[in-house]
Amino acid sequence: MRFLKGHGTGNDFVVLPDPDGALALTPELVAALCDRRFGIGGDGVLRVVRSSAIGIERSPEWFMDYRNSDGSLAEMCGNGARVFARFLVDHGYVTGTEFEFGTRAGPTSAVVTGDTVAVSMRRPRIHGRGEARLGPLTVSGEAVDVGNPHLVCRVPDVTAIDLREPPGYDRAMFPAGVNVEVIEGDAGGGRMRVYERGSGETLSCGTGACAVAAVLLGGGTGTVAVDVPGGRVTVTIEADRCWLAGPAVLVAEGTYLVDEVLALRPL
Amino acid sequence: MRFLKGHGTGNDFVVLPDPDGALALTPELVAALCDRRFGIGGDGVLRVVRSSAIGIERSPEWFMDYRNSDGSLAEMCGNGARVFARFLVDHGYVTGTEFEFGTRAGPTSAVVTGDTVAVSMRRPRIHGRGEARLGPLTVSGEAVDVGNPHLVCRVPDVTAIDLREPPGYDRAMFPAGVNVEVIEGDAGGGRMRVYERGSGETLSCGTGACAVAAVLLGGGTGTVAVDVPGGRVTVTIEADRCWLAGPAVLVAEGTYLVDEVLALRPL
Repeated sequence: MRFLKGHGTGNDFVVLPDPDGALALTPELVAALCDRRFGIGGDGVLRVVRSSAIGIERSPEWFMDYRNSDGSLAEMCGNGARVFARFLVDHGYVTGTEFEFGTRAGPTSAVVTGDTVAVSMRRPRIHGRGEARLGPLTVSGEAVDVGNPHLVCRVPDVTAIDLREPPGYDRAMFPAGVNVEVIEGDAGGGRMRVYERGSGETLSCGTGACAVAAVLLGGGTGTVAVDVPGGRVTVTIEADRCWLAGPAVLVAEGTYLVDEVLALRPL
Repeated sequence: MRFLKGHGTGNDFVVLPDPDGALALTPELVAALCDRRFGIGGDGVLRVVRSSAIGIERSPEWFMDYRNSDGSLAEMCGNGARVFARFLVDHGYVTGTEFEFGTRAGPTSAVVTGDTVAVSMRRPRIHGRGEARLGPLTVSGEAVDVGNPHLVCRVPDVTAIDLREPPGYDRAMFPAGVNVEVIEGDAGGGRMRVYERGSGETLSCGTGACAVAAVLLGGGTGTVAVDVPGGRVTVTIEADRCWLAGPAVLVAEGTYLVDEVLALRPL
């Protein structure tokens, strides 16, 4: 099985080119591929498949079949979408540097400019306030919906916050859990760290950066740079959508040597 | 740059075939390759190079140039040696399934039998007693030298020990630090967890398993199975050496796409 490995600001993915939808991508195979010791390692898998090959109509030619590292399905992954777009351009799956591809959250636009890949996301919606318990601290934040739930909490010093344990939060407000961001900054630029539900602290979170940008911009439109532990992304909030821009790199390409036959869908 | 990724009981390595010693394997490149988010990911790098190509005389044809994930040199890595031997056999670098290769700790013997790879190591030497502080507990253990220092501590339940923080130990007894193992069992079989100095808890540690076997066998010779979090290894202690046996698997093969030109030694 052919694979690539790539990352966007330290959020890393196993890319599986599968134009004709021949792979039987079971949760077990995804988890095996993403295992950092026994497999290739990644925060998730990006299967590159033709929309027509998996029966998705009225969609751009290429579909991002994103899976979490535990094998579960997810609607959207902002940094994953940036790595996906990098692959489409570098490997000649699209012509030009502005194009669309399909995702479970609907078509996404991509613009590739040198080292930078920008993808369009849903506009974040600030919808209330809540509290998170982070180690010994209780901090107040803004609840932001980016298709997934976020709680963006302003703190004096993001480096001083203990994110080793899952934050406490209001389960009535966030029945499906919440990603918690701690931030500093303003509309001139900010920095963040994030605890992703189910994963722990990560080096970057695309939807989290969009949620943080919405708060830094006070709920309005504009462009702001957001520093994450894995680098810098730039978020532009428009009236009806949001752009997430930053580096996206393919670092390795090769063949997965385990269970290659088992992974092929029986004819 | 061509690479493979493999593991032995969850101890994983980037294998770099470099027969003629053409790679400039700087600490920076090793660290970049081993980075689990921005690179390929691994506990270390195993460069496969001819002894003659790097000026090592009176050594077997192939030399295991092992580097820790931070780029530093290390004398020996038991699970790395097993993955190295797996590569030599599977890729036709040696004929037969019993052979020797060079390491910084001297020549090592390897025997490959189906899925199992056994390598010879130095015989562990028990040389005293010490104490480790593990979270709220203080436990007593046996100090064992396997070329690197170990403190093997018997506990009632290895799963109940908190290994998230570095253990406390007697710095006069272990001036270069110490790897701390917690164990259960006897000469009929045991299980262990390990905190590796400089790394934290790992899924497996080859020299640690040999140190544990020495304690389980009461300082004598014999064979004992040792369960580590990443699987099972079997250790045989002989009069003048020790064998570490267990699975060793190559999971991926490919090309590293970053700085390929920069990584080549200028002619």
